[in-house]
Amino acid sequence: MASSTSTQKLLFLLLSYLAVFQTAFAGDPDITSDFIVPSNVTQIDGSFFTFTGMRALVGAPPPAAFKVLKATMAEFPALNGQSVSYAVLQFPSGSTNRPHTHPRSAELLLVVDGGLQVGFVDTTNKLYTQTLQTGDMFLFPKGLVHFQYNPDANKPALAFSAFGSANAGTVSLPNTLFTTGIDDTVLAKSFKTDVATIQALKAGLAPKP
Amino acid sequence: MASSTSTQKLLFLLLSYLAVFQTAFAGDPDITSDFIVPSNVTQIDGSFFTFTGMRALVGAPPPAAFKVLKATMAEFPALNGQSVSYAVLQFPSGSTNRPHTHPRSAELLLVVDGGLQVGFVDTTNKLYTQTLQTGDMFLFPKGLVHFQYNPDANKPALAFSAFGSANAGTVSLPNTLFTTGIDDTVLAKSFKTDVATIQALKAGLAPKP
Amino acid sequence: MASSTSTQKLLFLLLSYLAVFQTAFAGDPDITSDFIVPSNVTQIDGSFFTFTGMRALVGAPPPAAFKVLKATMAEFPALNGQSVSYAVLQFPSGSTNRPHTHPRSAELLLVVDGGLQVGFVDTTNKLYTQTLQTGDMFLFPKGLVHFQYNPDANKPALAFSAFGSANAGTVSLPNTLFTTGIDDTVLAKSFKTDVATIQALKAGLAPKP
Amino acid sequence: MASSTSTQKLLFLLLSYLAVFQTAFAGDPDITSDFIVPSNVTQIDGSFFTFTGMRALVGAPPPAAFKVLKATMAEFPALNGQSVSYAVLQFPSGSTNRPHTHPRSAELLLVVDGGLQVGFVDTTNKLYTQTLQTGDMFLFPKGLVHFQYNPDANKPALAFSAFGSANAGTVSLPNTLFTTGIDDTVLAKSFKTDVATIQALKAGLAPKP
Amino acid sequence: MASSTSTQKLLFLLLSYLAVFQTAFAGDPDITSDFIVPSNVTQIDGSFFTFTGMRALVGAPPPAAFKVLKATMAEFPALNGQSVSYAVLQFPSGSTNRPHTHPRSAELLLVVDGGLQVGFVDTTNKLYTQTLQTGDMFLFPKGLVHFQYNPDANKPALAFSAFGSANAGTVSLPNTLFTTGIDDTVLAKSFKTDVATIQALKAGLAPKP
Amino acid sequence: MASSTSTQKLLFLLLSYLAVFQTAFAGDPDITSDFIVPSNVTQIDGSFFTFTGMRALVGAPPPAAFKVLKATMAEFPALNGQSVSYAVLQFPSGSTNRPHTHPRSAELLLVVDGGLQVGFVDTTNKLYTQTLQTGDMFLFPKGLVHFQYNPDANKPALAFSAFGSANAGTVSLPNTLFTTGIDDTVLAKSFKTDVATIQALKAGLAPKP
Repeated sequence: MASSTSTQKLLFLLLSYLAVFQTAFAGDPDITSDFIVPSNVTQIDGSFFTFTGMRALVGAPPPAAFKVLKATMAEFPALNGQSVSYAVLQFPSGSTNRPHTHPRSAELLLVVDGGLQVGFVDTTNKLYTQTLQTGDMFLFPKGLVHFQYNPDANKPALAFSAFGSANAGTVSLPNTLFTTGIDDTVLAKSFKTDVATIQALKAGLAPKP
Repeated sequence: MASSTSTQKLLFLLLSYLAVFQTAFAGDPDITSDFIVPSNVTQIDGSFFTFTGMRALVGAPPPAAFKVLKATMAEFPALNGQSVSYAVLQFPSGSTNRPHTHPRSAELLLVVDGGLQVGFVDTTNKLYTQTLQTGDMFLFPKGLVHFQYNPDANKPALAFSAFGSANAGTVSLPNTLFTTGIDDTVLAKSFKTDVATIQALKAGLAPKP
Repeated sequence: MASSTSTQKLLFLLLSYLAVFQTAFAGDPDITSDFIVPSNVTQIDGSFFTFTGMRALVGAPPPAAFKVLKATMAEFPALNGQSVSYAVLQFPSGSTNRPHTHPRSAELLLVVDGGLQVGFVDTTNKLYTQTLQTGDMFLFPKGLVHFQYNPDANKPALAFSAFGSANAGTVSLPNTLFTTGIDDTVLAKSFKTDVATIQALKAGLAPKP
Repeated sequence: MASSTSTQKLLFLLLSYLAVFQTAFAGDPDITSDFIVPSNVTQIDGSFFTFTGMRALVGAPPPAAFKVLKATMAEFPALNGQSVSYAVLQFPSGSTNRPHTHPRSAELLLVVDGGLQVGFVDTTNKLYTQTLQTGDMFLFPKGLVHFQYNPDANKPALAFSAFGSANAGTVSLPNTLFTTGIDDTVLAKSFKTDVATIQALKAGLAPKP
Repeated sequence: MASSTSTQKLLFLLLSYLAVFQTAFAGDPDITSDFIVPSNVTQIDGSFFTFTGMRALVGAPPPAAFKVLKATMAEFPALNGQSVSYAVLQFPSGSTNRPHTHPRSAELLLVVDGGLQVGFVDTTNKLYTQTLQTGDMFLFPKGLVHFQYNPDANKPALAFSAFGSANAGTVSLPNTLFTTGIDDTVLAKSFKTDVATIQALKAGLAPKP
Repeated sequence: MASSTSTQKLLFLLLSYLAVFQTAFAGDPDITSDFIVPSNVTQIDGSFFTFTGMRALVGAPPPAAFKVLKATMAEFPALNGQSVSYAVLQFPSGSTNRPHTHPRSAELLLVVDGGLQVGFVDTTNKLYTQTLQTGDMFLFPKGLVHFQYNPDANKPALAFSAFGSANAGTVSLPNTLFTTGIDDTVLAKSFKTDVATIQALKAGLAPKP
């Protein structure tokens, strides 16, 4: 009985909590509070607004392959409702950040070490490319296909990318197209090639066992 | 007992779920319903859309010091999602509404009694001032520092301010800067003065015991 | 010479045109500047942010019929991009602000003198009504049909309404339906009445010659 | 045991409540996820993104009176946060879609069978009309009063309407004005007619017993 | 004289330029007018809100290959600022609408004739597929890669798609990736294949001379 | 001839004016094109999307005082409509970025060299502080007062800040309050001090002749 009663109290508290809480919710557009506190967080201080996940990069050797480290709403909940996030992009020599799109934001990339060849394609199918040196910035407009490439045979490159969304999202095109199970026939027709070529591409991109 | 425990587990799961879920919700911009009913309200009628908290002002004597009465989402939950709110500003003779900003809205002030000197500063540090008489309106653009002053030695002033957000928020600059515990050294450097002056300002603004 | 003069006239027309035009397509959402300066304004000071069109109301006798005085983007260009505006509503005894909608904003009404009966209908066709006294506020949610009525046989009423848009727009339903030339047959079918009744309603609402 | 069961019922109610509730306050603007999963849905596959409620129309005889079939957030929860919805409009000969507004979206109508006379009135009370044939599209701007009419004595018409909101909402003006209980006096004053005419209109529009 | 004429040409060019230009920067969010009139349009009546470009489809034989007919802001200027548009998709037997994204809107597809196999991939690389019959609707969430395929060997299919933007934009992935001149090395690395395979794909997709 | 020339000058001025002007009223929300081309730009290639203004920082000695280098819509026009921008913050030993607000965006700061003490104050006047080391990130929520301080006596610090607006704007509080000409009396009353203290603060902050 007691348990039932206390459960009802808990439920009542929960409902009251939701009543208060709902006024605090927000999407990427303007929110109606200074910031959004996750419902399972009870104590807010400066550490809630701090993300230390990139410390590991300081002084670390470059990775063996292209690597992205993200600070979005998922890794850093304080970003919720604040319309901003970061990614750190590490390019070993000759590596590529494969063609992809961000469904929810433009990307503003800043080269902090080495150099990059970058490009994007607009909705009229025009390609825009540029060779960037350390200190240069490049804007990839919202939702368009883009890529980066470190052509230097000896020198790694490092870039920081700013996004105008707390969760820009990433659609990696090689993976999206060839590792998610889209029917071979649909892909062969789409790329005006044969099923064998599609299967070869799929095999090349499949995760190694 | 077991049931109580498993209920608490369910509640915990539910709360965790909500914590994750809330990152998907959205805010002050357009809502997709006529209005938003708080989860703890079961019966909605005309009184839900009515706010009577300003009746107290009718016929009341002017306050001893500058005073604001707000009708925002906090006091008047029906405003949630409707992008509008009000404040009533009462200025005894010679009183000031100290420099402040509203992070989430412009302010449109209407002088309903007496007169006011008003001003704001834009992001290029240009000051815009005006002397307002009864019936005049003044726009303080979104996010900029502004103030109002009743210079009349004998006559109180009254103004109504409209906001384009259900929760515009207020950052009172004297208080924000000098009563929240910001380090004396940082403030002294910032205001190009000495720590003694900062401490004197802090003492003057501190709440009286 | 003449050509030069007429060219200058063309340029002037073009500039005037732009001045009008820009107020039509600046969106109500966040702008990326402190404020928007019309293209035909060269000098900006405090008066640009001031609207004196309501001074005339101070001490003036009440009007003979219900009357609205607006301060929107059209009358007060500084509101462009600031998502806020005002209307002053004057209700002589027994007068009505006829059923209408505002397509681009909720309305937050504050009764500053007298009393009002108010109501709105939501999209489920539920009517919400309230009797307001001086000092009361009422929220009319965005886009819904609403009305106000001063039932007092002797006392006028005065209200200020705040909007979360620089140009909320007004659709007066009696006029929209019956004075704009909508085909009698369509109206008769819509109101499940005969053409004669529609024509009588149209005649009653037509502007007096 | 009983307490456990009733607790689970409460939790189920709470979850159902949240499922309904969340669809009410997620805003139409950009969301920060690919899509929004209702809290009572545990498994998401292609069927979540599929709406089969219009299959019934295929090959069905035309209805006896004007009829709307909607696919909005309420019928099709996957639309939540995606800012788009549909309505199918069926017009028997001589039938009318009565004057109405959509508070939260413009409407883009496509005539797929037969012909229609359409019109809307802007906020300056100007009427815009057009006669549409099969294959034609017409835009009804956001929030304005509009109607459609099939004048053909013999041929039904069919139209599909697209909306830029997951829940555009509909305010049917004859019903909103005359079947929701708005006071006869207010209506008589508003339409500049007598109470008897208002009562006759109300009687004509009242649901038949 | 000549100077005057050339000046008028300049003015004309300028006006034309503005007419084109304004469609580029009016945002998709709420506008502060009923609708947006292009600067080169002087007379507005019902025909401005009418699009007849799809009449040609009525009774026409199916096309030889997959074909899209659009009604966006570009073809139908009245859509500017109204956040809605249409596309008509014609699928001959066995044809495919190749994988693509729309950077600025979700897509709500309605099958009006025949059947379709459809799918999309979310940002976690999960594929969602469905087989649709006549009358079915499917939602492709904003910004994600999706495709449609008519697997029927004998029957064409027809679909109407609604978008919550006046200009959703289309990024056709086969074309964007392989016909815009992206460097072979970047593509070979990205698709984990050799340059020869990339060149073969490019050759297959290149426009026929 | 002269008239023709001066007319062309007028046209050129007008075009330049429009080029500047359009950056002022394009909203930060979603645009309906891939990107926005300034009206005075005729040729668009990759360089339009590139900003080289920060190259100068590479290998340069640290500045003598705190210094900000911005890449906003003003310096980098391609950012218009893309809702993202950057600032590079250079902190010599013991230097401070004085308390300020950004009216149009949150700020996400990444320490790339050295360490920083940072803080912000929310609208309830609660101070949040943190000590950051190289690699740490800190979020300053939208519109709130914040500051950074390099307490190290020997080591400079460097930080990159991302913003979710193409033009976040900066309101420097010491300058806004004490160097823009706000009346001494208003300031003395606001800071609860005497006019002499205000004048001393103003003198300290005034630009050196």
